[in-house]
Amino acid sequence: MDLHDSNLSMAEWEILIHSAESGEVSEALENVYRDKGNSFDVIFVGGGAGGRFGSAYSQARGLRQLVIDRWLFLGGSCPHQACVPHHLFSEAAREMDYMRWNSDTLWFPKFEEDRASIVDMIELFKKGRNNAHAFMNWQSKEQLDMEYILNAEATVIDKNTVEVNGERFTTKNIVLGTGTRTYLPPGISGLDKAGVYDFATLIDPGLDYEPTSCVIIGGSKVAMEYGSFYQATGCHTTILTRSPLMRTHSLHHVDEDLRTYVVDNMRLRGMNIIEGCTPLEVVGDERATGVRVRLADGTERVIETDFVFIGTGERPNTKPFVDALGIDVDEKGFVKVNARMQTSIPGVYAIGDIIGSPMEMFKARKCGMTAARNISGEPFEFDFSQYPDFLHTTYEVTWVGLTEDEAREAYGDISVIQMPPKGIRNEEISLPLAEGSMLYAFTRPELTGFQKAIYDNKSRRLLGAHHVGFGAKDAFQYLDHLIKKGITIDEMGEMNELFLNPEHFIQLSRLRAGQEHLIDL
Amino acid sequence: MDLHDSNLSMAEWEILIHSAESGEVSEALENVYRDKGNSFDVIFVGGGAGGRFGSAYSQARGLRQLVIDRWLFLGGSCPHQACVPHHLFSEAAREMDYMRWNSDTLWFPKFEEDRASIVDMIELFKKGRNNAHAFMNWQSKEQLDMEYILNAEATVIDKNTVEVNGERFTTKNIVLGTGTRTYLPPGISGLDKAGVYDFATLIDPGLDYEPTSCVIIGGSKVAMEYGSFYQATGCHTTILTRSPLMRTHSLHHVDEDLRTYVVDNMRLRGMNIIEGCTPLEVVGDERATGVRVRLADGTERVIETDFVFIGTGERPNTKPFVDALGIDVDEKGFVKVNARMQTSIPGVYAIGDIIGSPMEMFKARKCGMTAARNISGEPFEFDFSQYPDFLHTTYEVTWVGLTEDEAREAYGDISVIQMPPKGIRNEEISLPLAEGSMLYAFTRPELTGFQKAIYDNKSRRLLGAHHVGFGAKDAFQYLDHLIKKGITIDEMGEMNELFLNPEHFIQLSRLRAGQEHLIDL
Repeated sequence: MDLHDSNLSMAEWEILIHSAESGEVSEALENVYRDKGNSFDVIFVGGGAGGRFGSAYSQARGLRQLVIDRWLFLGGSCPHQACVPHHLFSEAAREMDYMRWNSDTLWFPKFEEDRASIVDMIELFKKGRNNAHAFMNWQSKEQLDMEYILNAEATVIDKNTVEVNGERFTTKNIVLGTGTRTYLPPGISGLDKAGVYDFATLIDPGLDYEPTSCVIIGGSKVAMEYGSFYQATGCHTTILTRSPLMRTHSLHHVDEDLRTYVVDNMRLRGMNIIEGCTPLEVVGDERATGVRVRLADGTERVIETDFVFIGTGERPNTKPFVDALGIDVDEKGFVKVNARMQTSIPGVYAIGDIIGSPMEMFKARKCGMTAARNISGEPFEFDFSQYPDFLHTTYEVTWVGLTEDEAREAYGDISVIQMPPKGIRNEEISLPLAEGSMLYAFTRPELTGFQKAIYDNKSRRLLGAHHVGFGAKDAFQYLDHLIKKGITIDEMGEMNELFLNPEHFIQLSRLRAGQEHLIDL
Repeated sequence: MDLHDSNLSMAEWEILIHSAESGEVSEALENVYRDKGNSFDVIFVGGGAGGRFGSAYSQARGLRQLVIDRWLFLGGSCPHQACVPHHLFSEAAREMDYMRWNSDTLWFPKFEEDRASIVDMIELFKKGRNNAHAFMNWQSKEQLDMEYILNAEATVIDKNTVEVNGERFTTKNIVLGTGTRTYLPPGISGLDKAGVYDFATLIDPGLDYEPTSCVIIGGSKVAMEYGSFYQATGCHTTILTRSPLMRTHSLHHVDEDLRTYVVDNMRLRGMNIIEGCTPLEVVGDERATGVRVRLADGTERVIETDFVFIGTGERPNTKPFVDALGIDVDEKGFVKVNARMQTSIPGVYAIGDIIGSPMEMFKARKCGMTAARNISGEPFEFDFSQYPDFLHTTYEVTWVGLTEDEAREAYGDISVIQMPPKGIRNEEISLPLAEGSMLYAFTRPELTGFQKAIYDNKSRRLLGAHHVGFGAKDAFQYLDHLIKKGITIDEMGEMNELFLNPEHFIQLSRLRAGQEHLIDL
C-alpha cells in the first residue's frame, strides 16, 4: 500500500493498523520516494528505537535512508510489548499498592483484590497500543520525512543489497537493528508448556486466564517489574533467581543500601524471593502446574503454580546476518561493534539490543544516531559504559554513577549524604517525603523511600546518586550528564531546588557545602 | 530547657515538641554553647528555611551563629503550615482525581465522595507534622551543630544586640528572616467572619467542619493548589480572581499553551473560575454565608458558600525592625536588600519571604547561604531573577526559562518541540504518556498532560521548558542549571534518557538535532 501521497491523520493511521492487524490489509505499508529510485545511502533493517532514531538523524543529515520493519509500525517492541506495557503495569502496581496500604482509611474504600485483574490490564494495553503505533508512523512520515516499508520482511542479500517482497534495494550502508527475544535457558525443561509466558507472549498472544499464583524464573529487571505487578494484583508471586536480586552482571552500580531497601520492600509486599537457587523444570502435563527448583542448600522442591513467567534475559537472532554478510558475533550471538557501531564488515553497522547490554532505549536510540553520524561522515563515538539506570517495583528505583562501596574503593575519602540519615531507621522518620510519598509520610513512614548521594572529598565532585521513591527518575537523566561534567557539591548547593523535591540532593548538598572538609550528612 | 548536653533521639524530640505544644513545657528549648559566652558572629532572627540554611552555612564556615525562633522547631512555616501540607493535599487531590476518573473500572471501586474529607486530611497532617519538626531540631543539633533557642521571641534591640526572655546576646551581624503572613486586601469587608480561612488558619486553629462548597478570593498559587484539593474532595470550588489565573505579576514565564492546558483542566474537573472580577464582601452574620463580587461586566452577585479561603498573597511584619534599626523597607513593608542580602544598615541582612517575591524555599534557603557567605568574608551575590517554578493542580505544573512568546520576541528564529505536536488535539493522542499518566493514556488521552521545549535556532541553545503532568518537576531543577550554562539541542540529544521519561525533551531533541537549520517538532 503506497502511502506516500496520502497524509493520513492519527485516527486514519490507527484504523489502518487495526485493519492490518486483523488481516484485512496484508500488503506492505510503504512511504518511499519512488521517483528517486531504489538506491539509498543507508538502509535500516529493523525499525525499532534504534532504526527510527537512526533514520531520523540520517534524514536530517541529508542522507537518503530507508527503514524496513516486519511489524506494522515503527518504534519496535517498546510500545508494542516492552517499555510501554511495563510502565502501564508498573503504574498499576504502584496504585494498587498505594490503595492497599490505605485501604479503608481516609477516602480509600476497602481494597477489593477480586477486582484486580492481570488479564484486564493486558487487554486495556492491547486495545490502546495502536495509538502509539499510529503516532510513530505519523510522526516518522509527516514530521521526520523518513522513507519506510512496514509489514514486510527484509532479507539482507549482501552488504549493498536488501530484498523486500522480491524487490531489491541497493544501499551504501546497512544498519542492523532487529533486536532480541527472550532467552530460554537450556537445562530447564518444560518451558514450552501452556501457562509459561515471557514479557512478549504475555501480550501476544496474551495471557488468557486469571492466574492464582506466579512463579518467575530469573531475577532480571523484567522479573522484578512484572513480579511486583502480579503481586500487587493479589497473584502471589515467587521469584526464583540464582544471583541475589539486583546483583546480576547486567545491572551495574547498584548501591547495597538501595538494594536492601528495594528487596526488603518487595518482601514486605508479600513476594517470595528465593535467591541462590536453580530452577530445573516446569512440571505439569500439557499445562504448567509448578516449577521444580534446587534450593541453595541442595534440596529440591516443587513450587505449585498455574503461571510461570520467564525473566532470564534476552538473545538476538543474528544467524541470517552471519550467513549473508559474515559479520562477527560473540558466543551468545550478539553482533560485535566498535564505538561507531561499525561491525567487522565495512559499511555494515549494528545498533540496539542486537549488540548486547544494556538493552535500554537510550542506548538503542543513540546507537542509531551514532551510526547515522558516522555514515554521514562525522566521526562520532558512543560510550555507553556509564549510564543512569532504573527499574520499577511498586517504587521507582533509579541510580547513576558509583555506589558508596565503589566510591570508597576508588576515592577513599568520600562523603555520603543520605535520607534517612545513617543511624535513623526508616520507620522513625517521615523523610524522604516528596511527590508520591506524602501520604506514606503521615501514615507509614517506613514506606517513603530512600536516597543517597556520594561526593569525593578531594575534588568535591558528585560521584553517584541513588533513589527509591517516586518522581526522581527524570532528574537522573540530567544528573548523569552533570556527573560526567564533574559537578561539585558547591555547584549543587547553588542550584534552585523545587521544594518539596523527590530527591533532596540539592538542599542536602547545600547544608554541607559550607564545609571546607566535607563530612557525611 | 537546656538541651545542649542531651542527645535527644527523633522520638524524644517528637514527644518534647508535643509536650510543648500542649503547654506542658512552656520554657525555651535551647542548644547553646554557654561556655563560649553570649557573643556571636551572627544571629539569625527567625529559624525558617533561610535562618536554618544560613545557620548551617555559617557554622560550616566557622562562624559562631545563633538562630532564634518563636516556634518550637526550626524549619519555619514550610513543614508546619505551608509546603508540606500543600504537598500532602496536592497528592490527595491527584489521587482522588485519578480514582474518580477511573471510578468503577478495572480495580477501582466506585469513588465515594462522602468519604473524602478535608478535615480528615488536616487532622492527619497535624497529627504527623511534629515528626518533620523533630527531624529539623535533631539534624540542626546533631548533624549541623547549630546553636539555637526555640519557643522564644527575639527582640532586636540594636544592630548588635538581640534580647530573648530578658537575656541579651551580642552579635557582629544580624540576619532577619521572620517571613510573612496572608495579606488581607483592604476593600473586601467581612474577612474576619467565621468560616474565612487562609493556608495558615486552615491548619491552626484548623478547619473544624466539612464545608459544602468553597469560594476562594484571589488567584495565587495557593488559590489554585488548595482549590484543586477542595474540588477533588467534592467540595465545589469557585475561584474569584482579578487577573486571569497564572497571569499574575508574581508568576513569570508562564507559557500560554501551558496555562491553557492547566486552566482548562481545572474547569474540566468542575471548578468555577471567574476571572476579571472584584470580590467586595464576605456576607453573613457572624459566619460567612457567601461572597459578594463585582463581575467583569460590572454586575454584582453573591456566591453562596460556607467556606471562604483567602489566596491573595502575603506581606511581612517588619515594623519592629524599622523601629529598632531604621532599615529601609518598600511600600508594602518588604525589606530592601542588595544581591548580598545586605539591608540599608551595615551588618544587618534580610533573607527569605521578608524581602519579597519569589516566596519559595530555594530562595529563602539560598538567601540564608548568601548572607552567611558574605558575613564569612566571601563576596557572594544571589540573583534570583530567573528560576524554575511550579504549582500543583491535580497535576504537577513546572516551567523554566522563556515562554514561546517571550522566546520569539527575544530571539525571532526559534524552534518549538512539543507534545502533543501542534495540530494534534490532546484527545487524539496518548502522548505524553509517562510515569503517572500511563493509565490516562489508555483510558483518557486528553488527561495525559502537555509539554514544550524551545530552542534558539542560531545558538541552538535551550531557552525554555514547560510541563504539565507528573514526575518531571525534579528534572527542572537541573534544567534550570543547564539552561543557564547554555546547553544546546545537540548536547540534549546526546544525553542518556530514562525511558519512558515524564518529559520527552531529550529524545525529541535528538530527533531534531541532526538538522543544520532547526525546525519545529
